[in-house]
Amino acid sequence: MTGSVQEIALVNGLILADPRSCKVVPHGKTIIKGNRIAEVNSSYLGDEISGEVLDCTDCIILPGLVNAHTHAAMSLLRGLADDLPLNTWLNDYIFPSEGQYVAPDFVYLGTSLSAVEMALAGITTFADGYFFMERAAEAAAAVGLRAIVAQGILDVPVPDNQRPEAWPDRVRAFFSGFPSNDLVTPALFCHSPYLCSPETLVRAKRMAEDHNCLLFSHIAETRSEVEQIGFRYNRTPLDHVHALGILDPNFVAVHCVHLSEKEVELAAESKTGVVHCPESNMKLASGACPAWDLVRHGAKMAIGTDGPASNNNLDLFEEMRSASFLSKLLTGNPEALDAATALRMATIGGAEALGLDDRIGSLEPGKFADIIVIDLNRPHLMPVFDPVSHLVYSAKGSDVRDVLVNGKFVVRNGTIMTVDTSELYARVRDLSNKIAAALDAPGRR
Amino acid sequence: MTGSVQEIALVNGLILADPRSCKVVPHGKTIIKGNRIAEVNSSYLGDEISGEVLDCTDCIILPGLVNAHTHAAMSLLRGLADDLPLNTWLNDYIFPSEGQYVAPDFVYLGTSLSAVEMALAGITTFADGYFFMERAAEAAAAVGLRAIVAQGILDVPVPDNQRPEAWPDRVRAFFSGFPSNDLVTPALFCHSPYLCSPETLVRAKRMAEDHNCLLFSHIAETRSEVEQIGFRYNRTPLDHVHALGILDPNFVAVHCVHLSEKEVELAAESKTGVVHCPESNMKLASGACPAWDLVRHGAKMAIGTDGPASNNNLDLFEEMRSASFLSKLLTGNPEALDAATALRMATIGGAEALGLDDRIGSLEPGKFADIIVIDLNRPHLMPVFDPVSHLVYSAKGSDVRDVLVNGKFVVRNGTIMTVDTSELYARVRDLSNKIAAALDAPGRR
Repeated sequence: MTGSVQEIALVNGLILADPRSCKVVPHGKTIIKGNRIAEVNSSYLGDEISGEVLDCTDCIILPGLVNAHTHAAMSLLRGLADDLPLNTWLNDYIFPSEGQYVAPDFVYLGTSLSAVEMALAGITTFADGYFFMERAAEAAAAVGLRAIVAQGILDVPVPDNQRPEAWPDRVRAFFSGFPSNDLVTPALFCHSPYLCSPETLVRAKRMAEDHNCLLFSHIAETRSEVEQIGFRYNRTPLDHVHALGILDPNFVAVHCVHLSEKEVELAAESKTGVVHCPESNMKLASGACPAWDLVRHGAKMAIGTDGPASNNNLDLFEEMRSASFLSKLLTGNPEALDAATALRMATIGGAEALGLDDRIGSLEPGKFADIIVIDLNRPHLMPVFDPVSHLVYSAKGSDVRDVLVNGKFVVRNGTIMTVDTSELYARVRDLSNKIAAALDAPGRR
Repeated sequence: MTGSVQEIALVNGLILADPRSCKVVPHGKTIIKGNRIAEVNSSYLGDEISGEVLDCTDCIILPGLVNAHTHAAMSLLRGLADDLPLNTWLNDYIFPSEGQYVAPDFVYLGTSLSAVEMALAGITTFADGYFFMERAAEAAAAVGLRAIVAQGILDVPVPDNQRPEAWPDRVRAFFSGFPSNDLVTPALFCHSPYLCSPETLVRAKRMAEDHNCLLFSHIAETRSEVEQIGFRYNRTPLDHVHALGILDPNFVAVHCVHLSEKEVELAAESKTGVVHCPESNMKLASGACPAWDLVRHGAKMAIGTDGPASNNNLDLFEEMRSASFLSKLLTGNPEALDAATALRMATIGGAEALGLDDRIGSLEPGKFADIIVIDLNRPHLMPVFDPVSHLVYSAKGSDVRDVLVNGKFVVRNGTIMTVDTSELYARVRDLSNKIAAALDAPGRR
């Protein structure tokens, strides 16, 4: 008798329970009871198990990946415009398209598409920032992913708020309309210190505190931003938000490409979350976050994909690899940001940056059962001398076989279990045909 | 009546026939007769077709990818040692393991594994350099890939030649024992100007000319190499081989990370093939080939994965993306090395660098039928505004649905059609268990 709580046991795989040590144990078992991990055991000897048994022979079992930064709904604009400077891309393509198309249903549909993509690639938690975010929360919960859903705040008209000065009303509506759900947590996202005044930043921080939630902002993404903030406030961007009293463990600074050495120390000391988005920063030629240096100083480092209109996919295996490669290239040191560090950033590091490390990020009894199973029975994952090396240097999202979030299968045998993807894809095609026709597909060659 | 020549028609897909223009045509048909392309037609209206019909609805049909540099057999050492300087990696891990394990059967097994990995990821032609290369040729042909198979030459003892001065005998044996086959072409590979004397380089070039084949060499991979060559010969590496009279359209210079502006011009003017291996160069912290500059000068630019022990996978979609990202990052210009340029380098550019552009690299009547079909019915490839952007910025090897080489299916619906992969994988596991036990798995954490 197991009572009414569902039990699932994962047996026979290589278990990588804690990315802080990256110790890999063969032939273990992991027991899930309800939505929690009940047991992580290294000595599975074929003993009897109540509940469902998932055989993980030739697989690695590890905590689900944490994508600490995206704009999920922008999947609907993926590939619309590429190979352009950030300002052209934003002002000539993205902002006009957003102005015309971004509405509650757009956000639900685009976030659903991204959540499906992320689930299939082993991401169990994502931190999202965009507009109409009540609908993003609904989409994440429908697909079955854990999400921190941050309502966008800008001092310019945006799709869900035409009167910039009225943003606090929009935020209040967001909090009051937020769907109550185990999986989704509300937060706020000030776009950047160049599109949010000091008053906006400080007020947003107060509202975030009132709701006991995180505040995100893009920080020091481009040189042009650093120049603007320097010109306006005579400070560098991270130092500017620090001077406003915003930098603390409930603040998440995204990008941090252009940091002074003093700001690297500041990021670490303030215990603010730092999200490295290596591929987006490369693609937009913004530069590279000094991730190796932030890690060395003990900063709370996470990895993000950024939005699918700027990156253009949501594969955190690729991002781990790029984070490592980029650090090696830029330091000239092939030992920099090694595989274990990259894996830590994409799991428990992401959980720490998002304040969720007491609940997710490692496989420990009592934590939520957010678990992924990687199939090693693929030619590019053979032979296996070092599973951690394979996860970072060889694997891709498509090697994920099973995904459990909150104790439930979201992906099983490479198939989404929670939503009807055929219907979802058909709706995406319908909408994109309209966008392409209206815009005469400016990005098309 | 179609006679005895097998006909296959690919219908209903988006056809990207020529990566030089990157024009994409919807609803086309491509007719294969025997091992050649017979027709590429943009007006498929459901007309009757003799032979087999492959429906490619929601797919992109394009020329197979060309991996212009790898050491395929090294897949058996994948992940054995990572996060190490090139010299430590080579001298403490790779060379000792090679000395102990690399034998004809190792090369056959490792090349088979890599060929299966490459086929599944849409690579239809690869240029390989290693030892016991007759066996690599057999493996490529058994899997059904097109390959240029280059016998390694070094002035130090190597697995298939213990007496360095006797390498010409080894080369003669390689040519005489080369398996006669439509798919595989022999070539020579001088490791580098620092492990091959000027005499060896010149003599290898003569032997290559006698057999009307290509000569490859790693060139200017690391700063240390540039310093050594400068010290010994008072020249930079590419200039050094030029001074030896070696640089011509039948020479392929691999890596070219550290080139002077004069050498960039030299590479272009000499019409020598240049192979950019972006991920390997990043991972080993060697630097980055000035690919954008070489392209601007009109050099014959290709992309390679490098060997799976240094990269650690053989996914040319990733390499296209990294080539583009790296150029954007290092020039500070997001327009640098755009998607179309990256795709050209990985297809017709590779064919040009390898002297195969009259036979492969684009879909044209009379060329060999080396064709891949990419399934767009994946969340990360939706919606489709620009297929070229998707191929370079969103796709991965696992999106390849079908692969035809020389008019034959090597991969169909994501499954290898030519060899028994279960048996192959079992043999790989057997061998790797022995290596891991003997070496006490130095790379294991």
